[in-house]
This record gives sequence, C-alpha cells and structure tokens, in this order.
Amino acid sequence: MFESRNERTEISELGEFGLIKRLTKDIKFKNPSTIKGIGDDAAVMDYKGLKTLASQDLLVEGVHFDLTYYPLKHLGYKAAVVNISDIYAMNGVPTQLTAGIAVSNRFAVEALEEIYAGIKLACEKYNVDFVGGDTTASPHGLFLSISIMGETDQPIYRSGAKENDLLCVSGDLGSAYMGLLILEREKQAYKANPDMQPDLTGVDYLIERQLKPEARGDIIKKLREAGITPTSMIDVSDGLASEILHLCTESKVGCNLYEEKIPVDIKTEELAKEFNIAPTVSALSGGEDYELLFTISQEDYEKIKTIPEISVIGHIADIGTSANLVSRDGKVAPLTAQGWDALLNKEKNPEKKKNSDTNQEE
Amino acid sequence: MFESRNERTEISELGEFGLIKRLTKDIKFKNPSTIKGIGDDAAVMDYKGLKTLASQDLLVEGVHFDLTYYPLKHLGYKAAVVNISDIYAMNGVPTQLTAGIAVSNRFAVEALEEIYAGIKLACEKYNVDFVGGDTTASPHGLFLSISIMGETDQPIYRSGAKENDLLCVSGDLGSAYMGLLILEREKQAYKANPDMQPDLTGVDYLIERQLKPEARGDIIKKLREAGITPTSMIDVSDGLASEILHLCTESKVGCNLYEEKIPVDIKTEELAKEFNIAPTVSALSGGEDYELLFTISQEDYEKIKTIPEISVIGHIADIGTSANLVSRDGKVAPLTAQGWDALLNKEKNPEKKKNSDTNQEE
Repeated sequence: MFESRNERTEISELGEFGLIKRLTKDIKFKNPSTIKGIGDDAAVMDYKGLKTLASQDLLVEGVHFDLTYYPLKHLGYKAAVVNISDIYAMNGVPTQLTAGIAVSNRFAVEALEEIYAGIKLACEKYNVDFVGGDTTASPHGLFLSISIMGETDQPIYRSGAKENDLLCVSGDLGSAYMGLLILEREKQAYKANPDMQPDLTGVDYLIERQLKPEARGDIIKKLREAGITPTSMIDVSDGLASEILHLCTESKVGCNLYEEKIPVDIKTEELAKEFNIAPTVSALSGGEDYELLFTISQEDYEKIKTIPEISVIGHIADIGTSANLVSRDGKVAPLTAQGWDALLNKEKNPEKKKNSDTNQEE
Repeated sequence: MFESRNERTEISELGEFGLIKRLTKDIKFKNPSTIKGIGDDAAVMDYKGLKTLASQDLLVEGVHFDLTYYPLKHLGYKAAVVNISDIYAMNGVPTQLTAGIAVSNRFAVEALEEIYAGIKLACEKYNVDFVGGDTTASPHGLFLSISIMGETDQPIYRSGAKENDLLCVSGDLGSAYMGLLILEREKQAYKANPDMQPDLTGVDYLIERQLKPEARGDIIKKLREAGITPTSMIDVSDGLASEILHLCTESKVGCNLYEEKIPVDIKTEELAKEFNIAPTVSALSGGEDYELLFTISQEDYEKIKTIPEISVIGHIADIGTSANLVSRDGKVAPLTAQGWDALLNKEKNPEKKKNSDTNQEE
C-alpha cells in the first residue's frame, strides 16, 4: 500500500553474525550507566557502582524446538536456563527475569501453565525472581522471549584472553546434540508407527542434556572459591568451535585446541559411533551444552587442576596464530565454526539445530 | 509422542488478565533487590538504593500490526516507544533496551534494517541505549519483543490513588484508534483497487498517532518541575476505561469520570462521526494513545492547572463507589473495559485492535 525500498539482500547471504554486525554497527551510547552493549553474552550497566547485566534470548517453535518431543515444562525451563547461562558467562549472578510468550489458539491454558511451571522451576533452582512479561496471541506457533537481569562485581568479557592463557571448559561437550539426534530418530520411528514407545534406555543423560540443560553457576562459585578470575569467558551454546572463535576474535588472539583434551561423555562417544559422527564433531559443532568456556592465566594452573569438572583443552597463542585444532594424530588445522545459525536454517534440521546464544554478538 | 495432560481450558475463557492471574498467582521473590514484580507497568528493583525498572512487550504480526499499512521503520519505533511509555508510567527514565526479532524468510536484510532504524530513532529521541537482543528465524511472520530498563528515584504504582484525589490524563484520547480505522478503510479500498492511492488528506495527526505514537516523558518532566508527585499512574494503552479500572482495582477505590472532561481531538470527533462511533467510545476503548493517566492530591490542583496538555477528568471516590462514568447528560453508569484483549482477538479486528500494555498486570 505504501512504497517500499527495492533492494533485497537475503539474510542467508550474511548469516546471523554478519547480519548483527550490519544492523548494529552505528549504535552509540548516551547513558553513563551503559558500560557494554551488543557483542558479549550480556549487556553491562553500572548503577552507582553496582554492575548489572541484561540479556535476551528467543525460542521459536519450528526453529529452536519441536513440540513432538519437547515437553512444555522442559521448554519453559530451558528458555529460562539459556538466559541464566548468559549471566553466568559474564561472571554474574542472575536475579530477575521477564517472560514474553506468544501462543496460537491450539494452545490451552494448561499448556501455558506447563511452560510457566518450567520457568518457575528454573527460577526456583537458580534463585531468580520472575518479575514480569507479556502474554499474547500468535497467528501461528509458539514464541518464547525471555529477558534476564543479573549482578556482578566484576564482569568477564569475551575480549580478555591473553597469549599463553589456558583455555578451559566445564563439564562435557556434544551430549545435548546426541540427545537431539536420538529424539529425532525416535520421532521418525513414531511417525512410521504411532504405537511405538520411544526407546530411551541407557541414554537418559543425553536426553536430559538436550531437554533439560543446566547453567553452570556451580562453576562460577568454584572458581571464586579457588581465587581464580578467568581472563575471558563465554557459554557454549553454538558449539565449542564457534565459541572459541568468538573468544579469539574478541580478544584478538589465536589459540591451539587439543582434540584429545576435549571432554566427551562415554555415552556420547558410543552414540556418535552409532550415528556415524566423530565425537569431536559433536563437541565442536553440536552446541546447546551450556557449559562455560574460559581462559585463565597460567599462574592459576595449580589451582584449577583441583576443581572437578573443568578440563584444560588448549592455550591462547598470539594474534599471528589462527585458532587451531590440534588433532589426536598431531595435525594442525584452523578451526571453523560449523555451529548452527538460526537464520540460515529455517527448517528444523537436526544436523545443525540448536539455540543461538547471543546478546547480538558479532 | 510423550503423554500430555488431558484438561483443556481455552485461553478465551479467562481473557488476558484472568490468565495472568492464574499463571502468576504463586510467584514469590527471593532476591532482596526485587521490590515489585508482576502487576504494574514495570517491575521495580532496588540496587543499593537505586531503583531500576524493567518491562517487556511483544508485538506480533497479524495480532498487533498489519504490514499492509505499517511501515517497518514505524513498527520498530512504536515497539520501542510502547516500552519506553511503560517506564514513564512508573515515574522513571528509560535507559537501556534489548530487542528480540524473529522473522520469516519473506523478510530481507533491508526489512530488518528498517525495523532497526525505527528502534534506533526512538532510542535517539528518548535517550535510551540499545544494548542487545536476539535475531532469529521464524517459520511464519514477524515477532518483535522489546525489553526495557529504566531508573527512578520514586516509583509510582497503580495502587496509590486515595479518596478525593483528582484523576488526570495527558494529551488527547481516541486519535490512535481513529487513525487505525482510517488505515483499515484505505486498506479495503486498496484491496478493491490496487491503483488507488491512500487518501489521508487532513488526517495526518490521526495516522501519526497510530503509526508513530510518542511516550510522554515531557509530562513526567513537567510534573517534576511543578513539584507534583502523582499518587498513582499508568499509561493508556488498552483504552481509558480499562486503565481507570486497573487504577481503581489496584488502589482499592472507586471513581467518577466525567465524559465532558475527556480530551478528544477535533479531528477525532469529526472522524468518529464519519465512522458512526461516539468519540467517547473511541477514547474509552480505542487504546494505543500512550498518554499518562494519573491521580494527584487535591492540594496540587492549583499547580496542575498551569500545565498545558493535562486534563482533570474526574476524581477518586471511596471503595463503596464503583468506577463510574458520568455522562454529559448527568447519567451515572459503571465503567466497563471494552479494551482490546490480545488473547481474545486472534484475528485482526480493527474494532478492537490495539497493543496490550502489560508487565503481566492482573
């Protein structure tokens, strides 16, 4: 009805990070309270000396989740947890969240209650107060938009890694992606035969990593107790490779990542073989693990090795070095991000599916 | 694939406010920084004495806007402004916002740039820093989720109105709704004849009120300069009647609203007649005016009458009185909220369409 511009650049030509760069390149700040905006896991504000954090993540039906196998309560829980994880990734404590939910009329009140129950459960577990939001209709599908706030005495950015720092990661990687592959396999079996009962024997851990991820506040606590302040940090949502590249780019450094050091659960290894995927690929590109990837000064090595569930997986190199993967047989190859890009993969695609975790990072 | 619960209560049986009440009734707070959660225009946090505010609003294509006549830049602007308005309605100053956008592949990069340009323009105008968000794919349509933060030295709640207080409103009411009716009329004409050019001669003000609303930070400033602290406040998003009922319910008071005092623009009156609608109905139920509705102590009457663009439209009565409309001919009738409910009106319906403005208020 009104005139519109004629150019048309497909979003897929730029990808998520290219798009964000283009959309946000000219943003400037006016408020003295704004310390850090777009480009990390959360924005940082300084309110009279108290540093607060804010982040927002969307979960869209048909893009980020499939309700065939995603229980609504788990979905609410996960939507909260992926946001909580962003606050931890800034070395913060999550304090409040708001939830925006848009639902089509195929959802009843009971469905919303399940989603809310999941959000509330996550709030209970992580000591976050559920303080507001918006609930509205949607012509199609389910949209969840959670915004989270937190506090920190010392934000840790992606940009602080220095040459010779040790690259560390919590927990294990690749399991959430294996869980997804199993659920997709069971969905196909169910579609072929609706009388079939899903067979999830022995893979509970992988399913839980996919359907009910946890955020690693316990790791933040342990690092503090050990007197370790990471030099840089990010959470693993888009896959280890993608996150390492973010750290290296933002910190203007290179790195060497050792394949043999990447922590992979034994069940993930088994299933990866079953699916004919290298376990390392699942860890590098699977994503949705919500573990913490961080760098520490070499001086802290003695302290960190006493903390369970943290693996030293590599070290930071100077900017002349690329971000490299050193394979088990000693070959060195540049890391490439195969992580899922929510804007390139519009159709649900388990080979690539996961949540994008971003405070519009470049 | 997995078992689900059997009950099914339609959301339309409860309506938005009934639904929110049911979903949020058992929410409790754990963080000492949380002062006020669900139930006002924004949540209130106290960070070491500095009170901060947070609110979130969703705008959904096909529910809140129609891209046939809604330019994307205006849409971005409006999405920011409706959130900024929530912060003003708490007597706050907006400081930061994050924007979550989900788009289907019918949108190109240039479309997102237009939306961003609108958000940035609003940020520029209202001194808000655009600090983050999330951009992702959507299988259908466009979803905008803005979260906003602000500061205040003294939050003003919906619950503070006292008997004998004066009921005041800024600007004029009902124009945004008239703008919507005109745009819908032109859309129908355009559908009948795509060569038609929209005829918007002389109705620019009404169109602008619909497509490019502004938030009344100027009123907050003027009230401060005059030394007036409202006893209660809310912004007019769902229609005057609905907002007055919120104030009365939260403050546990009644009120008398005088029809003859309701400020209606002359163009709105003219168009209302053309559309065969009483101008008062447009003001009471149209919504999307984003004016401020507030109560002040009678003592402040002398001060307020010197401020342009503020109308005293009634007074607060005791709880034994209902919220009444006193018509021009002196008849007294209880006010009923005919405001639009985003959960009842899934299909675009210009008779009822507008944005729900809520921090999940009950």
